[in-house]
Amino acid sequence: MSAYFTEIPPIAYEGNRSTNPLAFKWYDKDRLVLGKRMEEHLRFAVCYWHSFCWNGFDPFGYDGTFERPWQKMADPMAAARAKADAAFEFFARLGAPYYCFHDRDVAPEGTTPRESVNHLHEMVDVLAAKQQATGMKLLWGTANLFSHRRFMSGAATNPDPEIFALAALQVKEAMDATLKLGGENYVLWGGREGYETLLNTRMGQELDQMGRFLNMVVDYKHKIGFKGTILIEPKPREPTKHQYDFDTATVYGFLCRYGLDKEIKVNIEANHATLSGHSFEHEIATALDLGIFGSIDMNRGDMQCGWDTDQFPNNIPETALALYLILKGGGFTTGGLNFDAKVRRQSIDPEDLFHGHIGGMDVSARALLIAEKMLLDDQLDQMVDQRYAGWATPFGQDILSGKMGLDAVAAHVVARNTDTRPVSGRQERLENLVNNYI
Amino acid sequence: MSAYFTEIPPIAYEGNRSTNPLAFKWYDKDRLVLGKRMEEHLRFAVCYWHSFCWNGFDPFGYDGTFERPWQKMADPMAAARAKADAAFEFFARLGAPYYCFHDRDVAPEGTTPRESVNHLHEMVDVLAAKQQATGMKLLWGTANLFSHRRFMSGAATNPDPEIFALAALQVKEAMDATLKLGGENYVLWGGREGYETLLNTRMGQELDQMGRFLNMVVDYKHKIGFKGTILIEPKPREPTKHQYDFDTATVYGFLCRYGLDKEIKVNIEANHATLSGHSFEHEIATALDLGIFGSIDMNRGDMQCGWDTDQFPNNIPETALALYLILKGGGFTTGGLNFDAKVRRQSIDPEDLFHGHIGGMDVSARALLIAEKMLLDDQLDQMVDQRYAGWATPFGQDILSGKMGLDAVAAHVVARNTDTRPVSGRQERLENLVNNYI
Amino acid sequence: MSAYFTEIPPIAYEGNRSTNPLAFKWYDKDRLVLGKRMEEHLRFAVCYWHSFCWNGFDPFGYDGTFERPWQKMADPMAAARAKADAAFEFFARLGAPYYCFHDRDVAPEGTTPRESVNHLHEMVDVLAAKQQATGMKLLWGTANLFSHRRFMSGAATNPDPEIFALAALQVKEAMDATLKLGGENYVLWGGREGYETLLNTRMGQELDQMGRFLNMVVDYKHKIGFKGTILIEPKPREPTKHQYDFDTATVYGFLCRYGLDKEIKVNIEANHATLSGHSFEHEIATALDLGIFGSIDMNRGDMQCGWDTDQFPNNIPETALALYLILKGGGFTTGGLNFDAKVRRQSIDPEDLFHGHIGGMDVSARALLIAEKMLLDDQLDQMVDQRYAGWATPFGQDILSGKMGLDAVAAHVVARNTDTRPVSGRQERLENLVNNYI
Amino acid sequence: MSAYFTEIPPIAYEGNRSTNPLAFKWYDKDRLVLGKRMEEHLRFAVCYWHSFCWNGFDPFGYDGTFERPWQKMADPMAAARAKADAAFEFFARLGAPYYCFHDRDVAPEGTTPRESVNHLHEMVDVLAAKQQATGMKLLWGTANLFSHRRFMSGAATNPDPEIFALAALQVKEAMDATLKLGGENYVLWGGREGYETLLNTRMGQELDQMGRFLNMVVDYKHKIGFKGTILIEPKPREPTKHQYDFDTATVYGFLCRYGLDKEIKVNIEANHATLSGHSFEHEIATALDLGIFGSIDMNRGDMQCGWDTDQFPNNIPETALALYLILKGGGFTTGGLNFDAKVRRQSIDPEDLFHGHIGGMDVSARALLIAEKMLLDDQLDQMVDQRYAGWATPFGQDILSGKMGLDAVAAHVVARNTDTRPVSGRQERLENLVNNYI
Ligand SMILES: [Co+2]
Ligand SMILES: [Co+2]
Ligand SMILES: [Co+2]
Ligand SMILES: [Co+2]
Ligand SMILES: [Co+2]
Ligand SMILES: [Co+2]
Ligand SMILES: [Co+2]
Ligand SMILES: [Co+2]
Repeated sequence: MSAYFTEIPPIAYEGNRSTNPLAFKWYDKDRLVLGKRMEEHLRFAVCYWHSFCWNGFDPFGYDGTFERPWQKMADPMAAARAKADAAFEFFARLGAPYYCFHDRDVAPEGTTPRESVNHLHEMVDVLAAKQQATGMKLLWGTANLFSHRRFMSGAATNPDPEIFALAALQVKEAMDATLKLGGENYVLWGGREGYETLLNTRMGQELDQMGRFLNMVVDYKHKIGFKGTILIEPKPREPTKHQYDFDTATVYGFLCRYGLDKEIKVNIEANHATLSGHSFEHEIATALDLGIFGSIDMNRGDMQCGWDTDQFPNNIPETALALYLILKGGGFTTGGLNFDAKVRRQSIDPEDLFHGHIGGMDVSARALLIAEKMLLDDQLDQMVDQRYAGWATPFGQDILSGKMGLDAVAAHVVARNTDTRPVSGRQERLENLVNNYI
Repeated sequence: MSAYFTEIPPIAYEGNRSTNPLAFKWYDKDRLVLGKRMEEHLRFAVCYWHSFCWNGFDPFGYDGTFERPWQKMADPMAAARAKADAAFEFFARLGAPYYCFHDRDVAPEGTTPRESVNHLHEMVDVLAAKQQATGMKLLWGTANLFSHRRFMSGAATNPDPEIFALAALQVKEAMDATLKLGGENYVLWGGREGYETLLNTRMGQELDQMGRFLNMVVDYKHKIGFKGTILIEPKPREPTKHQYDFDTATVYGFLCRYGLDKEIKVNIEANHATLSGHSFEHEIATALDLGIFGSIDMNRGDMQCGWDTDQFPNNIPETALALYLILKGGGFTTGGLNFDAKVRRQSIDPEDLFHGHIGGMDVSARALLIAEKMLLDDQLDQMVDQRYAGWATPFGQDILSGKMGLDAVAAHVVARNTDTRPVSGRQERLENLVNNYI
Repeated sequence: MSAYFTEIPPIAYEGNRSTNPLAFKWYDKDRLVLGKRMEEHLRFAVCYWHSFCWNGFDPFGYDGTFERPWQKMADPMAAARAKADAAFEFFARLGAPYYCFHDRDVAPEGTTPRESVNHLHEMVDVLAAKQQATGMKLLWGTANLFSHRRFMSGAATNPDPEIFALAALQVKEAMDATLKLGGENYVLWGGREGYETLLNTRMGQELDQMGRFLNMVVDYKHKIGFKGTILIEPKPREPTKHQYDFDTATVYGFLCRYGLDKEIKVNIEANHATLSGHSFEHEIATALDLGIFGSIDMNRGDMQCGWDTDQFPNNIPETALALYLILKGGGFTTGGLNFDAKVRRQSIDPEDLFHGHIGGMDVSARALLIAEKMLLDDQLDQMVDQRYAGWATPFGQDILSGKMGLDAVAAHVVARNTDTRPVSGRQERLENLVNNYI
Repeated sequence: MSAYFTEIPPIAYEGNRSTNPLAFKWYDKDRLVLGKRMEEHLRFAVCYWHSFCWNGFDPFGYDGTFERPWQKMADPMAAARAKADAAFEFFARLGAPYYCFHDRDVAPEGTTPRESVNHLHEMVDVLAAKQQATGMKLLWGTANLFSHRRFMSGAATNPDPEIFALAALQVKEAMDATLKLGGENYVLWGGREGYETLLNTRMGQELDQMGRFLNMVVDYKHKIGFKGTILIEPKPREPTKHQYDFDTATVYGFLCRYGLDKEIKVNIEANHATLSGHSFEHEIATALDLGIFGSIDMNRGDMQCGWDTDQFPNNIPETALALYLILKGGGFTTGGLNFDAKVRRQSIDPEDLFHGHIGGMDVSARALLIAEKMLLDDQLDQMVDQRYAGWATPFGQDILSGKMGLDAVAAHVVARNTDTRPVSGRQERLENLVNNYI
């Protein structure tokens, strides 16, 4: 087992006066925040794909920039093992408690379906041993149903049921692997479940196929006794022109339609939120209000770029608002904070992988401390309560309870025959208040 | 009754060799298309607000550019009557069979709720007489719950139940007016039902308020025996930062959540579709597939501008694709094609109102003829059928019917142990085919 | 002279432990930063239009929400005086040293050109007296060439030279007023200098008209002895579909073409930057590198909205990066930091105007302190210097100086016949470093 | 020499009643349009990269979908020859007169700079022979300075002058190749000439490097006697966050700054235009008005996607407006209409490459015929002339010529003391007129 990150010491908390770039300034995993350890609140996960599989390629640079040793190895299974070595070496030095993976991240596609399954089984044993050795845990597993050319027109929504079936095999195996490795969730991201053009697409039928697929997944979960959460990760587009899991609200309607709204939750990615025309907070608040909040893919997009840049988060106030909403909603249960983030393709040094994750963990820790202040101080909540006070009156309650119909409410106004003056929304004052917590 | 459009002759169909800018080149209302008259297919409506209420103001030009005589009159009710005269004069000369209005478009707000109601009642009598005299019909009515300052923080979703109540009165009265005028639908556009900042907003409660409001509307519809369709018009943002009726899929989830999916459909606006990150066709296809397609607000946005430009449609192929989907879905029932479109604020001549509508009607008529060809030729459908043929096989049906679970389908693949090759999506060939119909 | 803001005490610096929402937590005007007082660095200006002229209207709410007393007064000149009273009362209580205005903000349009001029002259005397009394200074003046309907098709770029002439009169008078009031800059924002459609537009001719107009402005500046800076404020669109002053780079090309690149600089607005597809920092860096950096309109947009929201800045790290660039570039000379920002239309209380400005001033002050740390610590600069070190070698200098041509450089590579390995861009490490300064 | 497209017959013009998908319906190369053959007007070029180099990979599907035989060959030079065979076989069957290529499209990178040069020389001989044999001509050549990892931080704008030098070698060789093959233009697209973050970037220095590089290119062009046009192809972003050649106006300013505005023109790509916040027509009109219009990369983007989709054009009215402007501007000289377009990655059949190009050629031919009608009918021009008539009067001319200064023009207005009423911009009427030509 060769070591790849030998020059990097284990990352330690040194406090915010440290000038060591390879130390945490804010992430002090055992610090208590609202009675719980930081590590338990934040449940950080490192993703396998961006840091260990991606070679730095982009649409205009096919060959990649990173030159990781395992990406040059001729034997795919040997490469998979070397990659796992490097990944767990990284995990151990970084100190995040969880990781996440796709089936094809950890084990190569074989020449036949059976060989692919065997590869996965073999690598799951490797990962299990490494989890045992390091104490690392699996936040979630998933299946890659978008990279292979067979999935170019979708997986569950493919026009060909035989390709649906190949996807089903992968998901079954990835669920088995997740169960075996103690994964706490299972995620489905429908990267090719969408269309390029309506001219060749029966959208209604494809939605039915996807509804059927998800029901099969839920049935199988119960059959095998997987206790984790099934999560859909919404994204509006890219790679396809239009994806069916556009955003949280769309996924909610889909779940209702196919009887899944009590079975499946969402994994919200910050960059997917902004690509769909929402803020990250909006997507979190929506999921919480609809009762389907599960987990987050923490990253950031570039607001000038129309594609998924998957950068590490670095904006303190924005991250604080996201965590404030999550804490107010009760915090994570099975979910966590997965860095679906990659270092820039110019960040070619092994060390850069650490800078990315350290920055993301520190900004999240700092945001957690700010969110704690926001909750403890309680001014925000009080101002909002006051704004909605009228709905707690008998009149407000009679409307909401259904006691008064449209004509009764209208009659109330006609009888009173006066207008009602609006009151200030006090947005700037609230925004200033938030900045005071930083 | 003064005449405003005296210099404009009634608009006649003159065929596509005519060089008369004030004639239809394609809209020949009695021409049969797939066995039905063009007029019955297209069900054109002129909207009251853009053409008769808007004075040409914009965020950087408060005072407007149009100088319509009724906009300068001191007495609001006299102005309302003069506006109605001009509107029906316009309708008569143009020859579109329907119109649409908001309560406040046709009757001014009074100094008290009762006075506002009385104004509306008075103007409904005026409109009824004018409908009688001209044969014009009402496609839909609606209530303006966004212009008055009292609605600055929402109507149904206002933090103050007294403002909710004022909105309820308006909607009750607008529904009564719509019923009385023989309106075929009733529309709700939630222009202020959204938020500027989550910091002062309880989104979950506001959604519940809106769910309650819509249920009150549906109950009242049944109580008064209104046989038309209740329609929600989605829009993602503007005026608010984020509106709850973001798009069709979001509205569908909302309807499911509040038990309204069998009661309410959508009125899809082209420009709102593009603002929400979808194409117009996407929104139409989604509504059709979800069973909530109702009506359309036909217009176009400017793809370089991030706001609602509400321009008249003029792109032939795009309009043809929209109408092709609608025809394939069975065409309009109570719905129609409302021009929620305004002439540019530099188009200050009365004549320009005609050019806008003539262009919109001609492009729609032409698109209808293209859509007819697409349907009759059937090549598109055949190619799509062929693409999905596998799902009609026993294997495909066993999956969709639920006969096979995830593990059974996976076992099928393992047993066969071969991959499946994808087939071309033939997008370019299909796109060329569409152009051949133009 | 009635007082409007009587309930608001003068805003004092109370430090960041204060919980008083009507106090500065960070803006301590006499605090020294890099040897200069905060007030001298930041040169804050309050704008007249958003806070005192705008009534809270938007495209869907014509009537406004604010109900400022002077907006209800029947006599325009009396209203103008009452507005000036309120404005200077506000300025005095807030404690920002500068203000900015359009001609029509401070003095109403008359019924003839001469009357308009007289109104302005009269109000300039009022403003001069108020400046005298309060010590307020004018950062810049400008002319409103976009609100009146006569400018619907442009001012300098109008198809009618008589309208160009009306614009010339306004600008001449606004320049005279700016000179008289000791203004330090004169700004031109071409809100209608653009087009709605190329179908009716001769773009080449309109650019020539605009080039001519700007040359007239520069000649007149020299003629009257105005020592301030002439500034163009770029904006890509809104109100028009496409504006000629799209962004800083476009303005630079225009200035070169019409011989103005030594005479005119830019006033960069944060929200205009983001609307044009750039970051605020990008526009600042571009202007600095092209030698045309003048002043800034500090505000923020909403990244989910495609229009100019003109919100007060509140993001600490983003503001810090902007000020870091400005300080590195030498800071402001005649320019300053104008809040081209408005409270939300739901922020209807007089107090809200203070919250908006206090928040903006505090975030800017805090950003200034962060920028100071970034500069003093010098790590950022050192890492960048190191990255470009090769260009300081003889080989790099020979290329830049023109000593080596394309074939000589090519021959150098062929002779050496080896590749060159790239080095890490270290973006994540740099981003973490910036967060350490916050 | 194996044949790849054997099943495809040469594409012939069959007229618009043909139902043969592999025939031209509108592109009749010898048809006279305004006195010139269609082929001479349109100067179609097929690009090498999208159709013969790209394997269908995308950011979520690394391995590609196309499986072209030459993409699987082990020996790079053998693959290059097989690719050239297929390319020229395609060109011959399609019947477009031109092609375009990057150096690395036609000849593989070697293990040393010298080997790379040798590869290119060898392949240029192959291409020369094939041009001779088929009559194909080269519209333009270019160098790929963005795919190799050494260019990850830019080529001309790289922080390392040795990488600048490697780029210089490639450009020198690509220019030599273009000259040898009779290319009519040489293009530079600065895909990595930009930045990912300003934190590590000296933008001013990088612009100087780029200015120097372009001057070296121009000097070398004159030195070798290349008579074609040097073209820059603007693009706002992708692959980098921000590219220096953002759009046509930005390139113009850059050319002025580095003394190149008489030497270099632009190659405008439709999809790059829309990514930069402009319409394709806008970019064409801007280049024509600034005197730097050179050539076009004809394609289309997807207005819902924020990245470069490079689809074949298919919108008839939009293409007609683009060609109308080009014809009004005098048509192409050395430039032409290059299809920088790729079939969708699901269009995996060799036949799909034909459908893409046939569709693009037919829509362009049809657009040319519409543009001819627009020009011959002359109504558009007349209406625009009338709109600007005032500028032809002595008053208008006195302003433009500089005879009147700001105060003289202002005095003219004060003397007259009347306002001027605006006239309608007649946009809807003009839009209808355009549709009449279709
Ligand atoms: Co993700
Ligand atoms: Co992502
Ligand atoms: Co609408
Ligand atoms: Co609209
Ligand atoms: Co501004
Ligand atoms: Co602005
Ligand atoms: Co191109
Ligand atoms: Co492109």
